[in-house]
Amino acid sequence: MSEFGVLFQPDGLRISVTKGTLLSDAMKSAGLSIQLPCGGTGKCGKCIVEIHPEAPEPTSFDRQHLSEDDLRQGKRLACKTKVDRAMSVLISPGIRVLDGKILVDGLERSFDLNPPVAKTYVELPEPSLEDQAPDLLRVKRAMNMSGDHCPDFDIDLVRELPDIIRNAEFKVTVVTSNSRVVNVEPGNTTERIYGMAFDLGTTTVVGTIIDLTSGNEISTASRLNAQVVYGEDTISRIKYAIETKTGRKDMIEKIRGVVNEIIDEATEKASIDPNEIYEAVFVGNTTMSHLFLGFNPEGLSKIPFVPVTNASVNLRAMDAGIGINPRGNIYVLPNIAGFVGSDTVAVMLACDYLEKGPIQLAVDVGTNGELALRYNSFLTVCSTAAGPALEGAALTCGMRAARGAIEHVRITPDAVEFDVIGDTNPVGLCGSGIIDLLAEMLEVGIVDTLGRIHTPEELKGVVPDYLFDHLTAVGGEPVFHVNKKTGKNAKSVVITQKDIRQIQLAKGAISSGINLILKSSGLTAADLDEILLAGAFGNYISKKSAQRIGLLPGIPPERIRFIGNAASTGAKMALLSENVRTDADCIRQKTKHLELAALPEFMNEYTDSMLFP
Amino acid sequence: MSEFGVLFQPDGLRISVTKGTLLSDAMKSAGLSIQLPCGGTGKCGKCIVEIHPEAPEPTSFDRQHLSEDDLRQGKRLACKTKVDRAMSVLISPGIRVLDGKILVDGLERSFDLNPPVAKTYVELPEPSLEDQAPDLLRVKRAMNMSGDHCPDFDIDLVRELPDIIRNAEFKVTVVTSNSRVVNVEPGNTTERIYGMAFDLGTTTVVGTIIDLTSGNEISTASRLNAQVVYGEDTISRIKYAIETKTGRKDMIEKIRGVVNEIIDEATEKASIDPNEIYEAVFVGNTTMSHLFLGFNPEGLSKIPFVPVTNASVNLRAMDAGIGINPRGNIYVLPNIAGFVGSDTVAVMLACDYLEKGPIQLAVDVGTNGELALRYNSFLTVCSTAAGPALEGAALTCGMRAARGAIEHVRITPDAVEFDVIGDTNPVGLCGSGIIDLLAEMLEVGIVDTLGRIHTPEELKGVVPDYLFDHLTAVGGEPVFHVNKKTGKNAKSVVITQKDIRQIQLAKGAISSGINLILKSSGLTAADLDEILLAGAFGNYISKKSAQRIGLLPGIPPERIRFIGNAASTGAKMALLSENVRTDADCIRQKTKHLELAALPEFMNEYTDSMLFP
Repeated sequence: MSEFGVLFQPDGLRISVTKGTLLSDAMKSAGLSIQLPCGGTGKCGKCIVEIHPEAPEPTSFDRQHLSEDDLRQGKRLACKTKVDRAMSVLISPGIRVLDGKILVDGLERSFDLNPPVAKTYVELPEPSLEDQAPDLLRVKRAMNMSGDHCPDFDIDLVRELPDIIRNAEFKVTVVTSNSRVVNVEPGNTTERIYGMAFDLGTTTVVGTIIDLTSGNEISTASRLNAQVVYGEDTISRIKYAIETKTGRKDMIEKIRGVVNEIIDEATEKASIDPNEIYEAVFVGNTTMSHLFLGFNPEGLSKIPFVPVTNASVNLRAMDAGIGINPRGNIYVLPNIAGFVGSDTVAVMLACDYLEKGPIQLAVDVGTNGELALRYNSFLTVCSTAAGPALEGAALTCGMRAARGAIEHVRITPDAVEFDVIGDTNPVGLCGSGIIDLLAEMLEVGIVDTLGRIHTPEELKGVVPDYLFDHLTAVGGEPVFHVNKKTGKNAKSVVITQKDIRQIQLAKGAISSGINLILKSSGLTAADLDEILLAGAFGNYISKKSAQRIGLLPGIPPERIRFIGNAASTGAKMALLSENVRTDADCIRQKTKHLELAALPEFMNEYTDSMLFP
Repeated sequence: MSEFGVLFQPDGLRISVTKGTLLSDAMKSAGLSIQLPCGGTGKCGKCIVEIHPEAPEPTSFDRQHLSEDDLRQGKRLACKTKVDRAMSVLISPGIRVLDGKILVDGLERSFDLNPPVAKTYVELPEPSLEDQAPDLLRVKRAMNMSGDHCPDFDIDLVRELPDIIRNAEFKVTVVTSNSRVVNVEPGNTTERIYGMAFDLGTTTVVGTIIDLTSGNEISTASRLNAQVVYGEDTISRIKYAIETKTGRKDMIEKIRGVVNEIIDEATEKASIDPNEIYEAVFVGNTTMSHLFLGFNPEGLSKIPFVPVTNASVNLRAMDAGIGINPRGNIYVLPNIAGFVGSDTVAVMLACDYLEKGPIQLAVDVGTNGELALRYNSFLTVCSTAAGPALEGAALTCGMRAARGAIEHVRITPDAVEFDVIGDTNPVGLCGSGIIDLLAEMLEVGIVDTLGRIHTPEELKGVVPDYLFDHLTAVGGEPVFHVNKKTGKNAKSVVITQKDIRQIQLAKGAISSGINLILKSSGLTAADLDEILLAGAFGNYISKKSAQRIGLLPGIPPERIRFIGNAASTGAKMALLSENVRTDADCIRQKTKHLELAALPEFMNEYTDSMLFP
């Protein structure tokens, strides 16, 4: 069955779904929960999304609820629209839901809605000679707080308290955050409590405003991580940070700038004052956390990979240089190790790893692959240095999943077929395309288990004749052409022998990691109830192809599930619930970190895993 | 018996002692404890002080322990030197003692020496692939601390931790302050732990460095409170702070500047790096606390006199703009009310008011007089607006206790005798001189109980004839001349009828306060076991004169005790002991504040108290 790429905006999340899948189901798979008040029956007309560049034919439900203008703009009901082409889907914030229940690929994950920010409206008695209680004590009494030591109140707030109270004629709303009073607002503002959840990616940073009274998502914005000017990957950024005089300062300024731009855009969209946001939660890999918090990252760049701290961090927004309310709180989830960051902890939170459940292995494939295994109540994580090959970088024709990238490949008896993002001339191969291509080349026999591209002589009579037109040699090295040049500016997209070696190194890293983490718990792949594919990349590859090249073990494909951007889901949960934060600390404490490089069998396992099945 | 003024430096503390008093006893009376290792027998030669402008003849003990040079410089042993003249005594920090016991006028006040700063030397295990614990956790483990959340560690420290640890080759000293880790120093520095105690006076600010390992005073420095450029008294400073655009900012900058200059001077004297000081304790009146902390002081300037907060305040030095270690702690003792500040709490701490004891009334006479009564386990305080008259200000010839001030006056049958500070021509009257003068004028009969200066006609035959030369009238108003002009530049120092009215207002305020606070507990002056005179001014006046004009009640003089700068003593205790801080909060909580102006009998009592006995 053919598959299509769907890009959800503004999240920037890509997944691949089979033709005919309902958009609402595709969103569930991606971990994007939306409100379906009528249960997806098409009756209420609430789940409106906007589809680009070209929306499928409107259904009768669409025509019932939407105007001609709406339809022309590409608006459709998500619950009734089937995916029949590659598309970009814009989700408006209003329809998102996050009310203490989060859907992770259809599995409902419940948690208590108890965010660390609360507001209380109080009317204070006015002072007199008979009641000379200080202003601060007056507020505390109205709040039924015992004691009146200053550490409970932000000192900067205390300085301004008299004017605030008197200008508001003694009717004020007291804002508490993480058990401290951080603001006193005039009048009654108890209905407006907002927070933000951030996913600090090495490449992309996404921030979402959430209404903490309801759990609803209000608006989202995203930006490229501006630190990229100092290096594409974490290692080159650490190098810059420690080797350049102003390196750490530069890094922290770049990421703060990006986060603050996101805050500005998201608050403007939602007509919220940034000062109304009192809590911001951050997840990211350990390097991103270090560079965001201004920690010295040197230890992460060399054996034995020691972080400054793995603990969760709370600090005032003003001390972090983040443009929410200056007295608001910044919470960064805990890490587990130098290469297993808070994003992995967030995935484990989203998958409810603290509870006993099926034997699950969460896999986040990226330049650094992170694996998290739940086996009864034992939690184990490890990281594997896959390198950027699987994401399309560092290959002759590799590229990011952008316009012009070949995202799917099929070698049929008659032709090499492929899909290109944006339906244009192909200019390169993105990760899912590379995996498809290699799987097909293995299947047809062009590449053998050792990863060698056979010569035309060896393939004579083995493969369809037309394929010989796709095989050439450049500088004595075998090359496979996915397409043939058509037109003057078109490019021939190729994969070389050297490219395949790069992919072997990458997939060997992931695959040996999977084998070793299972082995550490006395398991094999056959024991796994489920493999959970997290992250943008994992959600876009073909299960079948990934299994064919041995990136994922050969278990029944229905046991492999896409869980969308689970790290972001975990961050939102932590924003909405202090209990989830306790869980995060608990996960960090009880999770065993397996340092693969320290295992005696590592090198053998790695070498074996470079072979294809 | 004649009395002499003794000025202790660098404290700037003046007391008046009877001729023949041992200097070591005078120091005790002033609340200045020094080490007397041999028990004051003159054997050890440790209690060396420097006397100016002219030291008494050296004793045989002095000759035994001191060189000719030393003797010429005015050095003497405090335990053997008798006060036989007015003198200035420089106490070198080395001989001071504060080892968990503080002497308050001979009464030993014991407390546990448990300062909030501690240092621990640890040798950390170096990380390896088998031990990848983060740097922060590594430190915590070595410290046997459980949990490793960041709030326990200062975030700025965490940022730099890797370099600190590695540059010190994993041998470090961990500095904890108020249960937070604020620094990690290379090597073993456990022997160097310092703190500072500050007395934030409206006029003068004094800071003392104390060795927190021993309790010894190391060095002291003092400065005029630079806020004086915006107003002499607290009310005019509040006015400036609230009425000028940059008023509060100006105020906080001035006081920070003064405190930082004191830190610089005191640390330089003692060869200590300001970064080695991790704790600074502050006491002052409520206005000074507000202006120091940047609190909006407006409520203190008008009925019903509401402070922003009375609670004790802890904040990081960097947030307070104070130049000790930036991550060190600033602790400001709690206030009780708008006009009863942490200086009064400190006096109550020094006098051990939390314990049951004799019925005592601590009196701190100043522009604002503060009274603190202990009656069994009941504590009551009140404030009285005495105005500046008793301190010499706002009178025709009033002045501070400085060179040229008449500090004692006697009207004998033959002459008006007086002592001048600095033994020079008189230029004015300071507080003790004013009280003496008025007491003598009452005694002789020149002034009557209503405060009226009698005319020469009325006094004929009543007073010695020579006194008529001292009585004149200026613009129809009777005037008494203390001296007669001698020499061209000499000045005639006078007291006018209007001056006496000012003094009546001032002494009436104090005296009615004393009556009302006693009455509130069902007591009269006769029930008092002791009156404790605190503060520089209180320690310098003549008990007899103060009683004669009715400033103090007529109880047996031996029940009136000078307790020196007890506020400063309390601050030092709070620096050395967390238990004392708990006591301070407890005092604040359990002390009843009597608002005199709200009492129905206040006006009557005040009017009555303006009369002289």
